[in-house]
Formats: sequence, structure tokens, C-alpha cells
Amino acid sequence: MAKQWVYAFGEHEFDKDLLGGKGANLGEMTKIGLPVPPGFTITTEACRHCIKEGKPPADLDSQVMQKLAEVEKKTNKKFGDAANPLLFSVRSGAKFSMPGMMDTVLNIGLNDATAAGLAKKSGNERFAFDSYRRLVQMFGDVVLGVEHKKFEAVLDSYKKGRKDTDLTVNELKQIVREYKELVKKETKKPFPDEPAEQLKLAINAVFESWNTPRANVYRKLNNIPDDLGTAVNVQAMVFGNRGANSGTGVAFTRNPATGAKEHYGEYLVDAQGEDVVAGIRTPKPVDEMKKDLPAAYAELLEVYDKLEKHYKEMQDFEFTIEGGKLYMLQTRTGKRTAQAAVKIAVDMVKEALIDKETAVMRVEPNSINQLLHEQLDPTAELKVIAKGLAASPGAAVGRIVFNAEDAQEWAAKGEKVILARNETSPEDIAGMAVAKGILTARGGMTSHAAVVARGMGKCCVAGCNAVRVDEKTKKMFVGDREFEEGAWISLDGDTGRVIQGQVKTVPPALSGDFGVFMQWADSFRRLRVRANADTPVDAKRARDFGAEGIGLCRTEHMFFGEDRLPWMQKMILAKDAEGRREALGHLLEMQREDFKGLFKAMDGLPVTIRLLDPPLHEFLPSHEELLVEITKLKATKGSAALLREKEVLLKRVEELKEINPMLGNRGCRLGITLPDVTRMQVRAIIEAAIECEANGVKVKPEIEVPLVSHVNELKFVKQIIDETAECVFKERGKRSAYKVGTMIELPRATLTADEIAEYAEFMSFGTNDLTQTTFGFSRDDAEGKFLHEYVEAKILDGDPFAVIDRGGVGKLIKMTVELGRKTKPKLEIGICGEQGGEPNSVEFCHIVGLDYVSCSPFRVPIARLAAAQAGIRHKKQ
Amino acid sequence: MAKQWVYAFGEHEFDKDLLGGKGANLGEMTKIGLPVPPGFTITTEACRHCIKEGKPPADLDSQVMQKLAEVEKKTNKKFGDAANPLLFSVRSGAKFSMPGMMDTVLNIGLNDATAAGLAKKSGNERFAFDSYRRLVQMFGDVVLGVEHKKFEAVLDSYKKGRKDTDLTVNELKQIVREYKELVKKETKKPFPDEPAEQLKLAINAVFESWNTPRANVYRKLNNIPDDLGTAVNVQAMVFGNRGANSGTGVAFTRNPATGAKEHYGEYLVDAQGEDVVAGIRTPKPVDEMKKDLPAAYAELLEVYDKLEKHYKEMQDFEFTIEGGKLYMLQTRTGKRTAQAAVKIAVDMVKEALIDKETAVMRVEPNSINQLLHEQLDPTAELKVIAKGLAASPGAAVGRIVFNAEDAQEWAAKGEKVILARNETSPEDIAGMAVAKGILTARGGMTSHAAVVARGMGKCCVAGCNAVRVDEKTKKMFVGDREFEEGAWISLDGDTGRVIQGQVKTVPPALSGDFGVFMQWADSFRRLRVRANADTPVDAKRARDFGAEGIGLCRTEHMFFGEDRLPWMQKMILAKDAEGRREALGHLLEMQREDFKGLFKAMDGLPVTIRLLDPPLHEFLPSHEELLVEITKLKATKGSAALLREKEVLLKRVEELKEINPMLGNRGCRLGITLPDVTRMQVRAIIEAAIECEANGVKVKPEIEVPLVSHVNELKFVKQIIDETAECVFKERGKRSAYKVGTMIELPRATLTADEIAEYAEFMSFGTNDLTQTTFGFSRDDAEGKFLHEYVEAKILDGDPFAVIDRGGVGKLIKMTVELGRKTKPKLEIGICGEQGGEPNSVEFCHIVGLDYVSCSPFRVPIARLAAAQAGIRHKKQ
Repeated sequence: MAKQWVYAFGEHEFDKDLLGGKGANLGEMTKIGLPVPPGFTITTEACRHCIKEGKPPADLDSQVMQKLAEVEKKTNKKFGDAANPLLFSVRSGAKFSMPGMMDTVLNIGLNDATAAGLAKKSGNERFAFDSYRRLVQMFGDVVLGVEHKKFEAVLDSYKKGRKDTDLTVNELKQIVREYKELVKKETKKPFPDEPAEQLKLAINAVFESWNTPRANVYRKLNNIPDDLGTAVNVQAMVFGNRGANSGTGVAFTRNPATGAKEHYGEYLVDAQGEDVVAGIRTPKPVDEMKKDLPAAYAELLEVYDKLEKHYKEMQDFEFTIEGGKLYMLQTRTGKRTAQAAVKIAVDMVKEALIDKETAVMRVEPNSINQLLHEQLDPTAELKVIAKGLAASPGAAVGRIVFNAEDAQEWAAKGEKVILARNETSPEDIAGMAVAKGILTARGGMTSHAAVVARGMGKCCVAGCNAVRVDEKTKKMFVGDREFEEGAWISLDGDTGRVIQGQVKTVPPALSGDFGVFMQWADSFRRLRVRANADTPVDAKRARDFGAEGIGLCRTEHMFFGEDRLPWMQKMILAKDAEGRREALGHLLEMQREDFKGLFKAMDGLPVTIRLLDPPLHEFLPSHEELLVEITKLKATKGSAALLREKEVLLKRVEELKEINPMLGNRGCRLGITLPDVTRMQVRAIIEAAIECEANGVKVKPEIEVPLVSHVNELKFVKQIIDETAECVFKERGKRSAYKVGTMIELPRATLTADEIAEYAEFMSFGTNDLTQTTFGFSRDDAEGKFLHEYVEAKILDGDPFAVIDRGGVGKLIKMTVELGRKTKPKLEIGICGEQGGEPNSVEFCHIVGLDYVSCSPFRVPIARLAAAQAGIRHKKQ
Repeated sequence: MAKQWVYAFGEHEFDKDLLGGKGANLGEMTKIGLPVPPGFTITTEACRHCIKEGKPPADLDSQVMQKLAEVEKKTNKKFGDAANPLLFSVRSGAKFSMPGMMDTVLNIGLNDATAAGLAKKSGNERFAFDSYRRLVQMFGDVVLGVEHKKFEAVLDSYKKGRKDTDLTVNELKQIVREYKELVKKETKKPFPDEPAEQLKLAINAVFESWNTPRANVYRKLNNIPDDLGTAVNVQAMVFGNRGANSGTGVAFTRNPATGAKEHYGEYLVDAQGEDVVAGIRTPKPVDEMKKDLPAAYAELLEVYDKLEKHYKEMQDFEFTIEGGKLYMLQTRTGKRTAQAAVKIAVDMVKEALIDKETAVMRVEPNSINQLLHEQLDPTAELKVIAKGLAASPGAAVGRIVFNAEDAQEWAAKGEKVILARNETSPEDIAGMAVAKGILTARGGMTSHAAVVARGMGKCCVAGCNAVRVDEKTKKMFVGDREFEEGAWISLDGDTGRVIQGQVKTVPPALSGDFGVFMQWADSFRRLRVRANADTPVDAKRARDFGAEGIGLCRTEHMFFGEDRLPWMQKMILAKDAEGRREALGHLLEMQREDFKGLFKAMDGLPVTIRLLDPPLHEFLPSHEELLVEITKLKATKGSAALLREKEVLLKRVEELKEINPMLGNRGCRLGITLPDVTRMQVRAIIEAAIECEANGVKVKPEIEVPLVSHVNELKFVKQIIDETAECVFKERGKRSAYKVGTMIELPRATLTADEIAEYAEFMSFGTNDLTQTTFGFSRDDAEGKFLHEYVEAKILDGDPFAVIDRGGVGKLIKMTVELGRKTKPKLEIGICGEQGGEPNSVEFCHIVGLDYVSCSPFRVPIARLAAAQAGIRHKKQ
């Protein structure tokens, strides 16, 4: 049996792979009885044949002619018949919509004879020759490859400044003649007058357009396989430009901005699709059709209804009205805002169109980020001066300051401030805390500024290269613009835009639907979701967003506070054990209160506390600053006492200096070389737990040992932890439960997870460090230097610090879970890296069987939704 | 049946686990008919029982008494019999010799009655009471725990400056009495006079000594399990101190220093073992016994012969002569120098004592290092002033200089120099090249100085903390000593000793035996051995040492030369593509000549050339130096032109600066972001290959892409390589074969080795980087900071940068081999990290099926031997 290359609309079942998106939907609409002008789809298979063999299938022509005859029958017109001509549109339709491919040729079938016939039949000569003019121009450009601007030049020579509609019939006829001459001159062949040849050439042109360089590049960029091919849709023409009872429009079955179930759409009377797009005339809301075109309006209402009942999804469709009758030309799933997506999903469940599972799958997890933050007023006019990375969402409006002290000073006076820095460091934390938003000139999506801002739920635009901050003169430069301290700017953390002046903002849209929706989502997820939080304020916010515990409390953040840093520095600079003990005593007092606050905020929920992680030099002034100061003091014969003091400091900083601090004396290495710090932290945790429990707070502390590479490190630190806890229990005469576990963030830990599990009650992946060491990429260096080029050159699909690299890092994660659970089948395993709130990574965590993900508070709802979708997607496995 | 806890010498088969080393060998000697005084061994099992149950087995006593009766029968003496007393020695004997355990108690069985009997029977009252005096002192000290110095005080009060031998019989009797009073006073119990009780207490004391703190620490440090236990040897006493026809001695069956088959040993007439050890009298060479003690000498010659024939190994033994008759007290495998080990192994094969396989197993691979370098004259007296790490072997004598320029200047004048630095950097290479040896105050076994020195085969003592170098004033301080530039010092790279003054040296002892031995070794190895070499000189040396190719040529080392660095810097600082091209053009000329030299030196053998690896900032001045210079220029209003120049340089250095350069823009990342550098290097390689082939040199270049983490990186660079090669082929009108492969040095590469193998013709493990990333340890930071503490605290068994960490890094290596060969079954895989020349690591490479190891030239023979031993050890697998 010969292969069928051509299907009439509705003849084949819904199959985007075979019929393309457009063709499949035209068929679908035909089947449910919507008024689709008849036509047929040439399959992607025919295109693939064409790509492979270099020519269309031998029997394609005859199959096309057969289907064409069916259309003639349905329309009572004849292709090429001068008396009653049938005209066709030819449109491409791949599985994925794809710019760069040939789009549309209209009015196929016109020539001098059929144009005259159309004029006669329609009683509208101008319409007929305008259509003819359009055919020659479109066909000449798209199918025959004559430059568009050459046709425009001819047209302009007639219009002489007038509008298209001002052209007379004679002028149009003259233009058609000149167009044809142009085609002959350019292509060395006459314009094909034969309708069958026009059709054949147009179909081939669509096939060939699959391999244009632009289409190839687009496919490469979007990971679309080159061998999919496109379908071709050949459809009987209907005309919206045949007078006052004709028209054309675009509509959505619901409001794509708000989600409201209302008639959303616009139309133009006496116009073709391209006129709506061109935007020369202003379209009217569809409800006005009731008055203008009442019959078509009635049909439209039925379309709304049928489409939604059939697709069970909000549709975006195009229609044309010819002589008062409505025709459907296209439908597809409508794009919508996050707010609309949530509302539509919830409403459709209420309308019994879909079930909750389907509803939960309908909202892109990342999109709900928009719902959680203040936004720039979408109606405001923006003077965008630069664009950086959308590092932390939300909007911020304030006056620029250039350092943490100024930020605090201005904020204390009640000013809204934006902290602008070349890059931030831990010492900026206090300034970041009071700022409305943060702008940095350098650093990537996981730079200090970005990570801390996300943690604080604060808007941040990072790595904005166009910005140069001169921290000394307190000025910011963007191109040749100069901004003084105190100048107003606005930031859009969702897009990375930096805007001059004070833009109005709107509050987050956490409507009731959102709550309902998230509740449904929760019912489908297996993964628990915790938050990374270091302060009671963050912890509370996380809990409000649905966090089921703290998955990572980074205790070092507690030491950068104004009241802490001096003691931390004293501890590091202590000359002897006694000096160190004194400093640690002060830090103990403060840490204990920190933990009490956290425990209270998370009453009843687990709190994972990571012991001190960063290298000590992070708490001291920078080596280079000190060098410069000392050089200056020496060169200018400055204060000898100050010089001595700085030199002592420099010496200690030099001792602590590391060539690769990321791989240096940090994490548990610090806890092993300075066990007193570990003891202080554990004491603070246990004392806080006992004091909280005395006040009826339910406390579940999980003490986490960072950066373990060998089981013996964990064993060593666990012994210190257990000894310290026992010591406190004895002092207080009370016991309190706690767990000891470890971060898994080094390849060696993953490879020996079975050994490590012997001493760990829980494990949590630190995927930032694990990604760094698995790739051998320093996050800070890679993002500023070569990572961008890697993604551009398609060496990497994306930033592995944003999305878990399943092929490498993911293998280690999988291995860890298998090895760890071999030792302890019920071992609790989570993830607390940046990727813990990224949907693709959350899905991976679900697949490999983690117990929870932990992410910054503002990403908790995203992670909840992503976990639900993963649960639904993989429920059969 | 009751368990047998006690075996007469020779009753049980040779079993060190059960009888301990000493007991097993006493039994062995008894069995082969050597004159061993009769006795018995109490098993380690009895000791283990004792440790576990807290008391000796119930039937131990009766079994001891039974074996004791057999000894009485053999000796015709009776234990405790005043008329004809039998005396015993009690000695510990664990499987591994172990300081801290009770060693020996002699003369057990003496009391007032038996001492009198011994006096009478021997006709030597002084001997009897001296023995009695020794028993009380030894027993009191070792078994009863009375402090040694208290006995010495009593003894001294009699000696009054005289020698032991000057004491009269009456004085000795008086001393025995006073000793016993001392024991009673100290232990609140009388000295045990009953021989059976003495024996029982002594046996128990040996058991208990297993658990002394010192023994425990020793076991912990040497990884000896705590539950092995020790055996106890009870042996009839023989006396070397019974006059002129008695004596005692120690001998080796061959010369342990040279390996010569000769009578090596010393003896003392009329003395006991402890007298030989005490070193008060000077022993005589054993051959003099021929005259002094002819019968015993004849027996001794038989002993030499029997021992070697039986053990087929050089023995170190102790003997005693009593009344002209020779008795054997101990034998064990003799320790020897590397030179002796080789000679003995070769000779024993020639003597048909052992086969070649056994011979090859007899030499510790690391020890042959000594044979390859100049050594300090072993007879010289040394004034050791400090001790650092034995970073690169050999000896060096020269005058100290403190920077590379001075080193070159002094060397040019014909002076021998030692380059002393706080630490070295790539800019010191030229100075290191002309120095006789290198001394650094900081840095570990894999610091720059250590690695480069080993590569150059040059003596280096690194990380010598006691040394402080003031590079500015050109002085070196060691404690309160001060050394000016030009002062003579000597270095011992085998021990890390730094010696004041000019010590004589002796040349390497590469005797003929060594050649024969290495040839045998080669016949047993499967692993090939290549060398890491960057220059023709190194390549030639490596080839002389038996290298079968170059496994790693680090091209960056070529750019640090005086003629290269300026062009490299120009390339980096170039403002445009043209400037860069010009600089690259100059580098191309030089690189091509470099490669031609290498190819010629390795004619017929493969040469693996790694493309540029280090981050570019390594070629520029340090950021901090520039900062200080600029600050100074500004503060002192120095030259504006110079300031401008420095500021431009600083800007570029800042652009290139990285937070963690080890994980930054280096390796193939550099080759991808700066493809022109890759093109230049590949062009140099291919042009050199073609030019060499034209001159009849057989060239096998292997182009190696470093630091690949994702297959696409290799794919990308391989394309550049292939395109460049094709381009050169076309220009030259000639083709030449080359391979493209990659370093495997990042965990992600190991995890995706199957994908990478698609594009790699060979793989080579860079275990330095792989260890860094697997552990998350920066080599430089870890070795200076926490690694030492980790090894001390037994968190790690040893430095993973020295010996491959089989449990972690090793797993990745194994995975790589499996994955890589799944894609390409014959994929060639090697290793070129520091560990490639370390015997334990070489064994691992053999086990996992690598094709070759590559190491610094001077380690090539070590690797060859280690590979042979691995081949023999694992040949059944």
C-alpha cells in the first residue's frame, strides 16, 4: 500500500508529530464541528522524505490533487476555474513554532483569468486585483526569493504617499504587471500563472525553508532536532476584506492577563489578518461584534464554548468573517501571566473541566515567583538605562548609596535606598539588610550579592556590566550618564532592568486562588520542602511560604553582624587560648540567642544548623587593602603605632591567606583545626534547645558538619559534638534530642557515602560546592570568565550552578543515595544548594529519591509546585 | 581437647602470627639443627586470652611446667635446684617488633640458694652473684616497676667511680641485699625468691606490657591492630660472661652496607649481649674468633651457611659462646642499604638460592632512589642546622644565594650555588636550573620548588620552617645563626637535612648489578613507564633511566624562559588581535624548536604534549606587588609615566585575577576562550613533527587537552587541533600522524569517560588535580595548613597527593577505565600525576589496568621496579 502523505483536516487523529501543531489543531476544530475552511495537511513525513531524498515523494502530487478535489467539492468552487475560482493559503506548521521558516502564502490560484472571474463573482474588482497584487508580491518574495524591498519600491512609486487603500483598480492592475516583470527580470523566468504550479512551488518552498540558515540556527539554539521536518497546510481562502460584513480577529477564551472567564479578543471589520498585525487601524473588543456582526458574534460565542470544552484549556485563536459567516483559521494553547495561569487552573477545576492533577501541571513553577514580590507598575513608562542579571526577583525603588555604612545611615533617616556596589562582600550584609534593592556591576547569579539578596527576598540586579561604581567619589556611571549619591533609581529583579527615576510599584498578588492552588499542589508531592534561613525573620517568612523546616542555617552569617564581627576578629587574632576563649564566650552568648529565635520561629519543625564553614580570612580585612595602607603609611612616614598595628594584622592575614580559599581551610577542616569553635557552636545550639524546651517550644535541631571528604572527619567532629552535648546535659541536668549529619558537597564524600552514613543521621547535598568540585569550576571565576562563552558555544546546555547537571553531578548524587541507604535504609537525604528551588533540579531530586529540598524562602512555593509536578509526572515509576 | 598454649622450640611449624617473630625463628633454627638453647614459646593466643579475659588461661601454668620439665631433661639441670640450677630468660616476641613492650628478663630462677649453687657449679662466685645482682635489678625494674634510676643509685654508691667489673663478690652480695630491700620498700612486698613465681610474674609482665601507653601509641602510629597480642619466649640461659672461652656477638650473613658475601659481624669475649649494646668495650670482627675461639668459629661458619640455605635471605643473628660452645639466640631478616639489597638479590640468583621473581621482590622500590643521585659522604661529620622535607633526593653543596638573578650571575662565574627562597615561583626556574640545590622555608612535598626540583633531578629541601630567608637584605636565619649571601651550606635531599659548610659528596652507585637487576624487573612488568619531561635534557635523562616515552610535556614551562616570558606577556597584554598574533608568531618559532628537540631525544617513542594549562596571570607580575608599587609611586609622587604604565598593567592583571585560580580560566577553558593559543601550539607540534620526519626521526606526538570536564570541551578543541593540523599538512604538502587525547583530572570527566572516549584516542590521569577536586583540597593550601594535622590525628592515613587515595580518587580512576574502555576497548590510559612514580600508586595503576605510568625522570627506575613487583604480586589475578 502506498504511504499516505496528505490528510484532509480531521481525517487523521490529533498528532502534532505528523501534522504539525497548526495542522493538528485545524483537524481537531474540523472534527468538533467548528467552521474551519476546508483544506488538507501534507505531513512532516513528506518533508522528512524531501530532506532525505532531496525531492518530494513521487506520489505526493497526485495525493494533493485528490485532496484538493475534495475541497472543491466541499466549497463548490474550482481551483483555476475562471468562473468560480477556488483560492488557497499555504502555511507551514512544524511541531514547534519556529521563526525563520516560510510562514504563509495567500491567494494561491490567482492569475489574470481567475482574478477577472473573482472580480465578477464577488462583484468587487478592487478586492480581486488587490488579492492578485498581494499574491504576486508574497509569492515573489517568499517562494521565488525576490527581495521584498524591490516590490515595495514598485508599490511606493504608485502610492506616492497615499495609503494602500487609495490605490485604484487600474493602478492595481498596473502594479500586478510591473510585479510580474520584476519577477521575470530577477528570476529569469515568468511568474507561474498556472494555479497547480503555484501550489506545487509553494509547498516545495515550505519544505525547503526547513533548512534555511536562520531556521537551523534557531533549532540549534532551542535543541530542536534537525530531522523533525515541517507539515504544510493548504486551506481554502476566506476573505475578511470583502466589505462591512467581513472582518478578522484574534481572541482568547479567557483573559490571559487576569485569567477571568470573559470574552477576550479584538477584531477589525473589512480587514485581513495582516492588517490586525500591522496595527494601522485600532481593533475593537470582540463584544462589539454583537452589534456589528450579530450572526458571526453568535457563532463566536459557540466557538469559545466548544474550544474550551474540547481542549479543556484556555485557547488563543484566529478567525475571519466573510460575508457575515465566521471561519476558524487557527487555535493554540494561550500564553498567560502567572496570575492568570493560577486563576484559570483553579477555575477550570471548579468548572469540572479538568482535575486537580491537571490543574497543578498547568502552571510553570518559576512563573509564580512573580506573585510573591512587589512589582513595577506594568503601566508605568520606564527609562531603562542598563540591564544586568535578574538575580533576585521583585522591584525596588530608592536612592543610590555606595556602601553599607551610608545605606544604614540613610535608612536610619527614613530614606529608601538602593545599595550599588561593584560587588558585595560579607561586610556589606548590614547595608544590604536595610536597602530596598541591590545593584552590582560584577558577579553572577550565584555571586554573594545574588545569593544573599535571594535569601533576604530582596530585589537584586547583579553583574550589570554597563554600570561602573566609583566607591571613592560615590558616583555611578552608566555610559556617559553620571549618578550622584542619592539619585533615584528603580530595579526590576524579574528582568534585570535598571531604570532611571522613581517608578510606581504594585503589591504582590497572593490572591485566594493561589492558596487553593498550592494546597492542591501539596497533595501531590512526596518531596518535603524546607528553607535556607539564618534569621528568625527569614524563618518566619519561609514558614509563611509553606516551608516544612530549615534545611540550612548558615551560622557564619550570624558572625558578620556589627556586634559580632569584632569578637570574631578577636577570636581569630587571639594570641593564646585564653584570648580565644574570651572571644568565644561572647560569641556563645549571641549564638545561643540566635538559635533560640530560630527554634521559636520553627516550633515543631526541624532546623538544620551548619557549623562554621567559610575560611577565617573572610572575617578579616582584605590582604590587599592592608598592603596598600601599610605602603602608604611607610611612604608618607605616617603614625608608627598605626603602622605597627596594621603590620600585626597583616601578618595574621598572611598566615590565613590561601591560594584557593574554596579548597582551603574551611568547613569541617576548621572545626578540626579549631575545635573550640565547634564546641562553642554546639554548646550554643544545645543550650538554646534546652532553654526553648523549658518554654514549651518543640525543638528539632540537626547539627550539620560541612565539607566532609573522609568519614574520619565526620567521626572526629561528631565526637566533639557528642562530648559537648553530654557536657551541657550534665550542667543543665536535662537532656534534649539532636541529630548529627553532614553536608555532601565533595566528590569524595559521594564516593564513600556508605562509610559516611555510618556516622551520619542525615545528609544534605551542598550542590554549589559539589558542582564546583565536580566540574573544577570556581563559581565566582567561571561565571565572570568562561561560563558565558561555554553556554554561547553550546559546550554546556546552561549554567550548572543554576540547574543540576544530571550527567555529572547528578550521577554523584544518585551514587550517594544508593550507597548511603545501603548502610542506613531510612537515611534522611536532602539538598540545600541553590538548585534546591529550581524546578528541573527539584524534579531530579524527586526521581533519585531525596526526602526534601531546601531553598531560599521566596523559592519555597516554587519548589513546592515543582515537587508536585515531579510527583505527578513520575507517579507511575 | 584442651587448647595448647605452649610449644617447645621447633614443635610447631613456622607461624609468626601464633609464635611471634622471635619464637618462630627460634623454632626454625632448632629444627634445622642449629645450636639453640632449649626453651618454649607461649603463644600470642594466650596473650589474646589474657587481654580479653583479664587473666591468663587457667591451664597455662601447668602447660608451662610441662614444657619446662622437657627443658630440664634436655639440659640436665633443674629449675630451682640449688645443686644444679637451670636459669631462664623471658623475652617478648610479637609478630611485629614493637618498642614500648617489655623486652627481656634474664637469669630467672636465681635466689640465695641457687646463686650459691651456681657459684659452686661454675666455680665462679663472682659470675654467680653478678648474675643474681642483674636479675634483681632487671626484674625489679621491668616486672615489678621499681624505677631503674633507684637501682643505679644503689649501684653507684658501691662503685664509687669504679667500673662494674671492679666490684668484689662481697660487694655484689651486699648490693643484692640492698636491691631486695629497695624492692620491698617500693612494692610493699618482698622480692619473689621462688623460681616458679619469678617465671610466672615475668610471663604476666610481658602480657601486660602489650597494653602500656607507649606500646598503644606505637601500634596506632604504625597501624598495628591492638588485638594481635605478643608471644613469650622462655629459654634456658647460656652465659657469654663465663671467662675467656665465652663471649657474645651479632652478625650478618652478608655485608649489609655493600651486599658483599663475607663474614660480617662482631663479638666480645667474656661478655653478655647487653655489653655489646652498651658499647663500653670495642667488639672485634668475627673472623678474629678463628684465633680466639676456633671451635665456636667453625660452628659459626656452619651457621652462616645453614641460615642462608634455609632462609634464602640475608640474616641478622645473635649468638653466645659459653665454655667454647656456640649458641644461637635469635635470627631475623637483615636490614640493608639499597646498594646491598640489589647486590644480594642479584648474587642470590647467581647462587641459585632464589629465582629472579623473588630477587625483584627483595628491593624496596623507593630505596633505589639513593642509587641514582650524588650522596653526602657517609663518613663525613655533619653540622646539621635544620631539617626540612626531603623534597627531591641527592646531595648539594654550594654557596647560598637568594634570588634567581644572583644564582645565574654566580653560576656564570663558575660558583656552585644553593638557591634559598621562602618559596619559589615560576619566575625562579632559570635560577633553579643553574643551582646545585634548592632550599625553601615554606611549601610541601608538592610545592613548586619540590615539583620542579624533582623534575630537574635536583636536590631540594623544602618547607624547612626553621629557616627564615630575608630576600631583601640577602640573609638567611636559622635560630640565632645568620648566613650571609655566599656562605657554604650542604643539603641532603634524602633526609631533608640542612648542613652548615662544605660536605664531601660521593657519586651515584649505578653498578653493573643494578643494570642486571632492572632488566629482570622489566621482564615482570606489564605497565609501561614514561617520564614527565619538558626539555631535551630531561627527555634524554629519562630515556637513560629507561623511560618508554614522554607521558607529560608541560608546555607552559617553555614560556617562562627569559626569551619567552616577554612575548608571552605581550600576547596576554595585546590590545588587539594583531598584537596578539605578532606575539604568538614569535612564540611559535620557539615552541617549534622546543618540540623538535624533544622529538629527536625521544626518537621512536611517544611524546605526550599537553596544551597550555595554567591561568594567564601566572605569566604576569603579582597583583600585590603592582598594588604596592603603584601606592608607593602615588604617595611619593613618583614618575607619572611609570605610574601610568603600571596602572595599565594592573588593570589587565585585575581582569585576569581569580579568586580560586585552580578552578578558574585554565586548561582547555583557556584554549577555548583563546583559540589562537591552541592553534599556535598545534602548529608548532605538527611543523616540528614534519621537519623531524624529514630528517629521519620517528615522531609519535600525542596532543593532550587538559582539564576537560565535559565531552563538548574536548570536541571543540579537537576540532581546532584537526583543522590546524590539516592546514599545516596542506602548506607543507606532507602529512604526519598524531593522536588527540585528554587529561582526566576532574571528577566530571571520570563520570562521563564513556562520552569523552568518543573523541579521545588516549587518556591520562592528572591525579594532582583529580585529588584536589575529589577531596576539595587545594594542594598548596592543604599542605601548609591542615593536612599535617589530618595525618597526625589519623583522619587520613597519609598525604593523598603523595599516594593515590584508593578509597576515593581510586574509585573514580577505576570508573574511568571501565567507562572509557566500554566505548573504546583498546583505549590507551596512563597516569602522569605526582603519584605516577610512587610504588603503592603504581601497584594500584597495575591493578586497575592502566597502560602506563609517567613520572619525573629520576623516579622512572622506581616506577619500573614498582610495576614489576605489582606484576609479580598480582599475576594470578
